[in-house]
Amino acid sequence: MSRDDAVVVGVDFGTLSGRAVAVRVADGAELGSAVHDYPHAVLEQVLPASGRPLPSEWALQVPEDYREVLRVAVPAALRAAGVDPSRVIGIATDFTACTVLPVTQDGVPLNELAAFADRPHAYVKLWKHHAAQPQASRITELARERGEAWLPRYGGLISSEWQFAKALQVLQEDPEVYAAMRYWVEAADWVVWQLCGSYVRNTCTSGYKGILQDGHHPGEDFCRALDPGFATFVADKLEHPLGRLGDAAGTLTAEAARWTGLPEGIAVAVGNVDAHVSAPAAQAVEPGQMVAIMGTSTCHVMNGSELHEVPGMCGVVDGGIVPGLFGYEAGQSGVGDIFGWFVDRAVPGEYEARARAEGRSVHELLTDLAAQQEPGEHGLVALDWHSGNRSPLVDHHLTGVLVGLTLATRPEDVYRALIEATAYGARLIVETFTEHGVPVEELVVTGGLRKNPLVMQVYADVLGMPLSVCDSDQGPALGSAIHAAVAAGAYPDIRKAAAAMGRRTEAAWVPDPDRHATYDLLYAEYRRLVDHFGDPRDNPLHRLGDLRRTALSRRGAGAR
Amino acid sequence: MSRDDAVVVGVDFGTLSGRAVAVRVADGAELGSAVHDYPHAVLEQVLPASGRPLPSEWALQVPEDYREVLRVAVPAALRAAGVDPSRVIGIATDFTACTVLPVTQDGVPLNELAAFADRPHAYVKLWKHHAAQPQASRITELARERGEAWLPRYGGLISSEWQFAKALQVLQEDPEVYAAMRYWVEAADWVVWQLCGSYVRNTCTSGYKGILQDGHHPGEDFCRALDPGFATFVADKLEHPLGRLGDAAGTLTAEAARWTGLPEGIAVAVGNVDAHVSAPAAQAVEPGQMVAIMGTSTCHVMNGSELHEVPGMCGVVDGGIVPGLFGYEAGQSGVGDIFGWFVDRAVPGEYEARARAEGRSVHELLTDLAAQQEPGEHGLVALDWHSGNRSPLVDHHLTGVLVGLTLATRPEDVYRALIEATAYGARLIVETFTEHGVPVEELVVTGGLRKNPLVMQVYADVLGMPLSVCDSDQGPALGSAIHAAVAAGAYPDIRKAAAAMGRRTEAAWVPDPDRHATYDLLYAEYRRLVDHFGDPRDNPLHRLGDLRRTALSRRGAGAR
Repeated sequence: MSRDDAVVVGVDFGTLSGRAVAVRVADGAELGSAVHDYPHAVLEQVLPASGRPLPSEWALQVPEDYREVLRVAVPAALRAAGVDPSRVIGIATDFTACTVLPVTQDGVPLNELAAFADRPHAYVKLWKHHAAQPQASRITELARERGEAWLPRYGGLISSEWQFAKALQVLQEDPEVYAAMRYWVEAADWVVWQLCGSYVRNTCTSGYKGILQDGHHPGEDFCRALDPGFATFVADKLEHPLGRLGDAAGTLTAEAARWTGLPEGIAVAVGNVDAHVSAPAAQAVEPGQMVAIMGTSTCHVMNGSELHEVPGMCGVVDGGIVPGLFGYEAGQSGVGDIFGWFVDRAVPGEYEARARAEGRSVHELLTDLAAQQEPGEHGLVALDWHSGNRSPLVDHHLTGVLVGLTLATRPEDVYRALIEATAYGARLIVETFTEHGVPVEELVVTGGLRKNPLVMQVYADVLGMPLSVCDSDQGPALGSAIHAAVAAGAYPDIRKAAAAMGRRTEAAWVPDPDRHATYDLLYAEYRRLVDHFGDPRDNPLHRLGDLRRTALSRRGAGAR
Repeated sequence: MSRDDAVVVGVDFGTLSGRAVAVRVADGAELGSAVHDYPHAVLEQVLPASGRPLPSEWALQVPEDYREVLRVAVPAALRAAGVDPSRVIGIATDFTACTVLPVTQDGVPLNELAAFADRPHAYVKLWKHHAAQPQASRITELARERGEAWLPRYGGLISSEWQFAKALQVLQEDPEVYAAMRYWVEAADWVVWQLCGSYVRNTCTSGYKGILQDGHHPGEDFCRALDPGFATFVADKLEHPLGRLGDAAGTLTAEAARWTGLPEGIAVAVGNVDAHVSAPAAQAVEPGQMVAIMGTSTCHVMNGSELHEVPGMCGVVDGGIVPGLFGYEAGQSGVGDIFGWFVDRAVPGEYEARARAEGRSVHELLTDLAAQQEPGEHGLVALDWHSGNRSPLVDHHLTGVLVGLTLATRPEDVYRALIEATAYGARLIVETFTEHGVPVEELVVTGGLRKNPLVMQVYADVLGMPLSVCDSDQGPALGSAIHAAVAAGAYPDIRKAAAAMGRRTEAAWVPDPDRHATYDLLYAEYRRLVDHFGDPRDNPLHRLGDLRRTALSRRGAGAR
């Protein structure tokens, strides 16, 4: 088969569904795709069979749903592409993370054993399972006390979403499940295991979610101090050989070939994370290129040639995006969801009626109205902290601020101010990286918000740098397909494959010098607000939050 | 006629209409009232006869409209009361201020002379005529430079609404009108002149609006420095004998008796201002009692036994509210209009629909929802500066701030936070007065907002003091009626008349100690925001305002 005919399959496992895409190896053309919803979606209220209720902050999934995506979406994508399966030379997957599950020696999820089917801790803990916050807080606190060298690699904060916090929750709440599990596996790796029959841990989730730094996880002493029963967690449940991104974890088993309709023996790539695998899809794997995956929140990933500790980053991992470079991750806690909150909670009926009459969404109407303004015209500046600030302040107790209101302030004014606030937040991250040895020269945007022209132009004008855009609607799946092509040997490495198969419009949005000059002044105001409202030692937002919690607990206690 | 039968008439000249009320002298019972709209309302676009256009910021009125109120509303009020006019022993009026007009030696308004009928400057300048801002700024600046002793009596700011700024505008823009006028008269005094045939200047507007302090207006040197042609303004156009509040200016002329249907020769009281005359109606003329007239904005008036200079007050005038005491005035630029702005601009259609379905206003719905919360529960604190801050900061370039937003913030949360912000603003005024030698012990509320139970309870809880309420819906007209009774000799002075005829529910709202304790903490946050955002030397709100004006002027210049 010539390379022109060769096809690879990328499968993106999201929060509610899996998407398979058939991609031409030669040029990355997306030939066809199919989506399959997880039958159980997210378990937040009850377990499926017994109806056993779940506490708040829980979010579980059912592993069989992932297999169903392989059985349904992969063949459907090939049919949609009109491609004979014999042309497929490799498959790769990416996953939400940290999404993690307890399995046996053979990779059987514990929830699939009759003895554990009614035990919540036997199921997959989805990334947004937040019930391990007490464990996460303890891990961060202990690491700070002990001065653990790995803590600054995560901006000083270990998340409740990650492997250690979730595992410690299992141990402390259901020791029998903990004892029964042989491996605590990222779903990203488990699904690869299902495809090729071997367990290979990918360097991306091992680093970002599993606290693997310089070849080591947190030590036995540290784990013992967390909980005596947790002392040998790393050796007992976690450690296992690693695979580099873009390498093959193995080849497709006969069983998985039956599920997917693909040829037995083709390459199966090492697993990866949806955000990080977007970088090759956006042709943004060189140092200096920061990828912003902009949706309800924004995840920033970029490569650097050196290891630096950037304040407030979510993580830096050697080979975390491509082998040979340090992969950096940062995040803005709220972006699109702030715009959504505003539209739901603060836009008058008159605007809703007008948008309806014009056959468009309120977002589109507000975007149009806000786009007619010059920077500074509305007189507002906001802090985009409605759901806290991840990077660079790492403070989930921060809240939003809106400054400059008058009786003439209109909804489109506030809408624009909120868009600008998230752009200032992005600029703060970019400047923090640049100031700490990881210079950012280009922002490459992927995700749903890249389609909003006002958002894009404001970001370019605020950042004062050209904005490139990933032209694929399915960035993660395309990124996985690129990994599959490398794993199959069609390209020597991810960087070369990305150059051939990725899709980016370079400098799709360029800053206007006048607007940028005005935004420099407005950004200076934003920075002053950050200093005033972000100070961890004397913080009005913390005090307001404390008063809020006191008031709510008093109400909860039925005091009145 | 026994005192039980005696009746007085109070007439309140507002912005759009005049209201006459017939009141029983013995107990202040409001027997009947009538309202008459000014036929020309407010002239803001064009002059009536010629259609000559007016510049922006202008607001004129037609004096004949005021006479029409006397001819229509006064007899109608008596008819509504079922009272024979022969029982009326006195009449008094109050007016918006500073509302001022140029007249001849005989009190004929210049606009009624054919030669001036088409000259805008010949008409009444209503209080909200703001086109004399350049003149007002110059007056304040010059007074500051020269260290004029009267400037601190006005909190350091002379308003564009007042007599001097408006007169200087006439001189500089239409010197012929300026030359032709014999007197520059407050409408409050002009309408009394119409009733009794003599020109008596009231101490209230002479002090608060005419810069009369310690028996003197600003001196000739000062006026010359403003404009050489203005040097003798005081001697030529302003000076004239004064009348004490509550005294008779004269008796009803035969002509005015024909207009009103009242007996010729009854007492006509010295004129007064709507806000200040509300104090006797609310039985709040003793030192320690602050009256808050709460509507779109709030005006605070109170008496003190000593003269003090309170930062940011609007004025202190000897005998400005009642003879023998110092009358203090302060103001909050935005109160009800901030709530109105929020309801118009920031409440979703879902709330509008729900209010409609429940047959009530959005304000009522939000009030109900917000009232279910405990202080602090919404996590917000706001600065009530959407239209600047008069007292105590005297800064019209300040703007509103909202702190503590999250994705869970609801419209009722922000609504409550805005109500609380205005209560904090009121507390800041109360504390400023108390700290500067004018202790406030009771707040007596009049005006439309006193009917909102949430607003009242929040104010009591924030202030930590009992709130009394004036029970009349027509406070100013009742206050005028009290003045009429004093002028007619039915009571020896305003204080005694107020005790008999005013209407107040004492301590109608009392603070809850727990809520007050929480509000102490929230108010401390408000004070910190005031310090941060109110600093005149380094002010983010000023910088945002400057950027806003620059952007708007650039747009105006068609640069883009």
